Amino acid sequence: MVDLRSDTVTKPTKQMRDAMYHAEVGDDVYGEDPTVNQLEVLAAEVLGKEAALFVTSGTQGNQIAVLTYTRPSEEIILEADSHLFYYEGGAVSGLAGVQTRTLHGKKGQIPIHELEAAIRGVDIHVPKTSLICLENTHNRGGGVVLPLSYMELVGDVSKRYGIPVHMDGARLWNAAVALGVEVSELTKHTDSVQVCLSKGLCAPMGSILAGPKDFIDEARYWRKRLGGGMRQAGLMAAPGIIAITEMVQRLEEDHNRAKSLAKKLTEVEGFTIQLAEVETNIILVDTKQSGLTAAEVLSILKDKYQILANSFGPYTVRLMTHREIEEEHVLKTIEAFKGIRAT
Amino acid sequence: MVDLRSDTVTKPTKQMRDAMYHAEVGDDVYGEDPTVNQLEVLAAEVLGKEAALFVTSGTQGNQIAVLTYTRPSEEIILEADSHLFYYEGGAVSGLAGVQTRTLHGKKGQIPIHELEAAIRGVDIHVPKTSLICLENTHNRGGGVVLPLSYMELVGDVSKRYGIPVHMDGARLWNAAVALGVEVSELTKHTDSVQVCLSKGLCAPMGSILAGPKDFIDEARYWRKRLGGGMRQAGLMAAPGIIAITEMVQRLEEDHNRAKSLAKKLTEVEGFTIQLAEVETNIILVDTKQSGLTAAEVLSILKDKYQILANSFGPYTVRLMTHREIEEEHVLKTIEAFKGIRAT
Amino acid sequence: MVDLRSDTVTKPTKQMRDAMYHAEVGDDVYGEDPTVNQLEVLAAEVLGKEAALFVTSGTQGNQIAVLTYTRPSEEIILEADSHLFYYEGGAVSGLAGVQTRTLHGKKGQIPIHELEAAIRGVDIHVPKTSLICLENTHNRGGGVVLPLSYMELVGDVSKRYGIPVHMDGARLWNAAVALGVEVSELTKHTDSVQVCLSKGLCAPMGSILAGPKDFIDEARYWRKRLGGGMRQAGLMAAPGIIAITEMVQRLEEDHNRAKSLAKKLTEVEGFTIQLAEVETNIILVDTKQSGLTAAEVLSILKDKYQILANSFGPYTVRLMTHREIEEEHVLKTIEAFKGIRAT
Amino acid sequence: MVDLRSDTVTKPTKQMRDAMYHAEVGDDVYGEDPTVNQLEVLAAEVLGKEAALFVTSGTQGNQIAVLTYTRPSEEIILEADSHLFYYEGGAVSGLAGVQTRTLHGKKGQIPIHELEAAIRGVDIHVPKTSLICLENTHNRGGGVVLPLSYMELVGDVSKRYGIPVHMDGARLWNAAVALGVEVSELTKHTDSVQVCLSKGLCAPMGSILAGPKDFIDEARYWRKRLGGGMRQAGLMAAPGIIAITEMVQRLEEDHNRAKSLAKKLTEVEGFTIQLAEVETNIILVDTKQSGLTAAEVLSILKDKYQILANSFGPYTVRLMTHREIEEEHVLKTIEAFKGIRAT
Repeated sequence: MVDLRSDTVTKPTKQMRDAMYHAEVGDDVYGEDPTVNQLEVLAAEVLGKEAALFVTSGTQGNQIAVLTYTRPSEEIILEADSHLFYYEGGAVSGLAGVQTRTLHGKKGQIPIHELEAAIRGVDIHVPKTSLICLENTHNRGGGVVLPLSYMELVGDVSKRYGIPVHMDGARLWNAAVALGVEVSELTKHTDSVQVCLSKGLCAPMGSILAGPKDFIDEARYWRKRLGGGMRQAGLMAAPGIIAITEMVQRLEEDHNRAKSLAKKLTEVEGFTIQLAEVETNIILVDTKQSGLTAAEVLSILKDKYQILANSFGPYTVRLMTHREIEEEHVLKTIEAFKGIRAT
Repeated sequence: MVDLRSDTVTKPTKQMRDAMYHAEVGDDVYGEDPTVNQLEVLAAEVLGKEAALFVTSGTQGNQIAVLTYTRPSEEIILEADSHLFYYEGGAVSGLAGVQTRTLHGKKGQIPIHELEAAIRGVDIHVPKTSLICLENTHNRGGGVVLPLSYMELVGDVSKRYGIPVHMDGARLWNAAVALGVEVSELTKHTDSVQVCLSKGLCAPMGSILAGPKDFIDEARYWRKRLGGGMRQAGLMAAPGIIAITEMVQRLEEDHNRAKSLAKKLTEVEGFTIQLAEVETNIILVDTKQSGLTAAEVLSILKDKYQILANSFGPYTVRLMTHREIEEEHVLKTIEAFKGIRAT
Repeated sequence: MVDLRSDTVTKPTKQMRDAMYHAEVGDDVYGEDPTVNQLEVLAAEVLGKEAALFVTSGTQGNQIAVLTYTRPSEEIILEADSHLFYYEGGAVSGLAGVQTRTLHGKKGQIPIHELEAAIRGVDIHVPKTSLICLENTHNRGGGVVLPLSYMELVGDVSKRYGIPVHMDGARLWNAAVALGVEVSELTKHTDSVQVCLSKGLCAPMGSILAGPKDFIDEARYWRKRLGGGMRQAGLMAAPGIIAITEMVQRLEEDHNRAKSLAKKLTEVEGFTIQLAEVETNIILVDTKQSGLTAAEVLSILKDKYQILANSFGPYTVRLMTHREIEEEHVLKTIEAFKGIRAT
Repeated sequence: MVDLRSDTVTKPTKQMRDAMYHAEVGDDVYGEDPTVNQLEVLAAEVLGKEAALFVTSGTQGNQIAVLTYTRPSEEIILEADSHLFYYEGGAVSGLAGVQTRTLHGKKGQIPIHELEAAIRGVDIHVPKTSLICLENTHNRGGGVVLPLSYMELVGDVSKRYGIPVHMDGARLWNAAVALGVEVSELTKHTDSVQVCLSKGLCAPMGSILAGPKDFIDEARYWRKRLGGGMRQAGLMAAPGIIAITEMVQRLEEDHNRAKSLAKKLTEVEGFTIQLAEVETNIILVDTKQSGLTAAEVLSILKDKYQILANSFGPYTVRLMTHREIEEEHVLKTIEAFKGIRAT
């Protein structure tokens, strides 16, 4: 099988398994797991924040952030296609009780004047706006990068209105690598950030939530309530350390492979790709011209070509490159798309 | 003062005060207030529903509906400018814990294919879509009417997907009068409806939530939890009965007056009105051409002309006609707008 | 029918109906109802608090207090038989998301050392204790009064730990009259208080929530979200003003009548009463000795004697006196209990 | 250091590290991790339930159960000292919005007639009782076992009232070993159960939630919302499989060691132990006679004797045995207590 569904399917590397095997551990609920502590210190430093918390998933990191910043009946601003709104099971409202104010972005970016206009005034009829959420890279936007200039503009709004910014950086290192900057450049203008250690960095599980110390102190309480307090968690933190220290640069390969695949796909009739928007490891393929729905394309890819992919809408197929996708898989995929077309 | 802020400012009529004074009452928490019971039976009948519940406000009726239909972390679909989303203090998320999926309507109508596309599938990442909400007439849309044909189309989607429809009919009688149909025609395709007795119908307070019997039975529990269980509530139900039985036809006057005012306003330079969209008792005035913001216009109207109005955005003034607005006030208002222009 | 179920069944007096009829009103959502404003100023003064808010019911006042003081996953301390825990439909947890720490009181009073011991420390495993709730008089305790000395002790704990106290004073005037003190003496040691205008004071509906100004400012938002924002609410505030200014002293009659009824009942074999605990207008009758359950007694009282009462447990009947219970009803009730016994 | 704080501090065994190292993994969010799947099938079978779910902690398993069974404003019945109420940060109310009805048990057992009496009737004032929770063994009760006969009685009540039972079986295997029965005997009368793989069984992290298939299907949604969906989770499931298959019988050693330690402690003056209640691996030591508080005892144990323990109240020290506590540590602990006494 060629698995282009997601970079989450990447398996831990040999080096990660070794690190796990030898990891020193303790009871992290008591704060005594040395490997977890090492990961949290390291992650805070790399992300340019005072403190960090190891959580079991990106969703958990995001949910904890919202629970920590907000009170029920407040409103948070999110891009309409953001993971937090689209793919977290309605949890921000179900758990934190906040209303979701969704705005449509271009390439993941909510126009700044619309962002500003959506901030509520003081009036008994309206909720208080208490958080702005960003996503970088933006998954449903096709892995596009929110540039530094945009982050700065959002940071400006945040400061002017006194409303914190949380960034869902599940694939933030992809953004940093694509821009050729340190990841801490991208977190400068946000109060908190969540980054995933699995996905392209290949750790088996886990994410980091980073931010000010008092924010992380309170986040720790919410992690416990969500059942994210683990015991000898150092076993899972050990591969996380490798993810951060050893795996970041290799994301460039995923990006190059995605661009190579995307470029070749533009030559297959029936499928449309915005080549300029393939900025990282995600490719969105519009199937409309082929006369086939995304579901039909996925089904043929799987059954006839042993290729797995996901859909993002009735006519949108998402392909994602990662460590286990090599050049030969790119070629195989192109052949498959050609074959579909010929059917 | 000429008060064009809202039809909520209407005072109870002499007939209503008389009815209150003589109302027979009991303890409604025990279900023994004869006047409340009479109002609930009457309202259910008029609205074409099995049962009805007297609640203290439109917001309460809407919130109870959402609490009754849904579970936390589910998603409800609403028009992006609907009262339920915009003006109820984030309560649907804060109280019921549901995520708000907002779609932009044209004249209050979410395009049917967009409504359908927004219904979530079965997937561990996404919330269940459990309610569709409509608003008729649509307040922030400028008092526009959702026509019968549209209601039917929404009803179709509702049936096909097994998702109930709740209608915020705060000004549903305005819609019925504008269309020249019975109000029960407009509730045919929705499972439940909330209608206000105050607003244009002039009752001092209170709304009706109507729907299937088991729905209202459960709604009664939620009303109690929200603190909406009142004792000798017949005093407030008595004017409500008059609102439904005596005050509906007079809404036509409000509509005519609004049209008259709107038409005259189109002749004042600097202010733009979509005359064709003045379908009931609301007029939206775009102030951009005048070079003045809505806040500035409101301020001049109030200080210099003793006229009160509301704003719906940086350059949008809302005027609303009601029982206490007479022809002379229309003329006074026109003079004021001319005066502003001349300043 | 002799209705001893509750003092909530009292109908508004002629004077109240007159006041309603002539009440000057405005739109209270805009803060412009002069009668509501008058009631709120008066109530704040009488209760010795900075500000007050007119709400539709005691439950609503209590719920708003909890919503204003707390955040989800915090813990509030309540007496195990308090109205807030027992009779508000689980709303403190459903709406405010707080965990209820219930402690068993003696005559409504949680022993001070148990209260103090229940306050949580700082630990990631435990909720923060964020509110202490009292009830005075205590309904399920049999209308017993929390004395000034106890209030002071609770106030001490509150100050030492920095945890606010809210008092459910649905029948606080009964306590004040029984103790022969001003009601403001009883509110001295609590941050906020809710008092009912209906019940023994005979207003048709409504309660007052009083406390610090910033607390009431925020409470106003929660009232709106619960749908408690009413329009021409002065109609209901007018009898509330009479309740506070004219009806308080008459509670003494209810207390005397209750004592008279209780005393006579102690002479009826089969029914047990703690005479010393009949401090206000509530009598708890233990039916065990009669061999009949409370439900059976209620049923006979109703069917054979046209007397209504409530039950508070399998063998506990609650009788309540109020303005519509006269000496003749007391005698009739005694005859009935004798008759039951004879059966 | 002799660490008697909790069995959660146990480190994974060599065999567990080996299993982890070699574990076959996949993306569990897609349901494709073979090791997780194997663990879930195995656990369901052992626990006698249709289906099982691997979760990150006992708290998470418990919270998911409550979220799945209930709706906000419902009431759940729990023992007043249960972990779910006492040590989960108020999450049942903060996340699921349920009110906690706590009843005091004897040795962890709520008297059956009190349990039954606490079930609410149908009345607009009261919440619906929607869940009964048990804890076996009962932690704050001192590790006492709920016997089969009691489980059956609770099961009876459950069936008669149609209210499901969830068991927090964080240390259920301790109960099974103490009773000499299969663990499935103890789950017969409960609808769902949560069991921990860490604690005495020594897995590094994780718990199992087991129950009917449709319950687990819905639980999976809640796990995702809480952020408990992990990717290559097989790495953590592998030691979990060893925990269930290899580590259960060794709990007997912990029990024997606890009894040995407890017995010797009864001979140290100043410290009181209910020897008959040391049924598993927990010992509660009453320090009152020594004139020292629990905090003082803990401090001396730590600083002077390098022994760690926990407190369960102002005069209650909890000691817990586990795989890393050997006979020499027992002796060292006895010497320490004697030394404290002598001070």
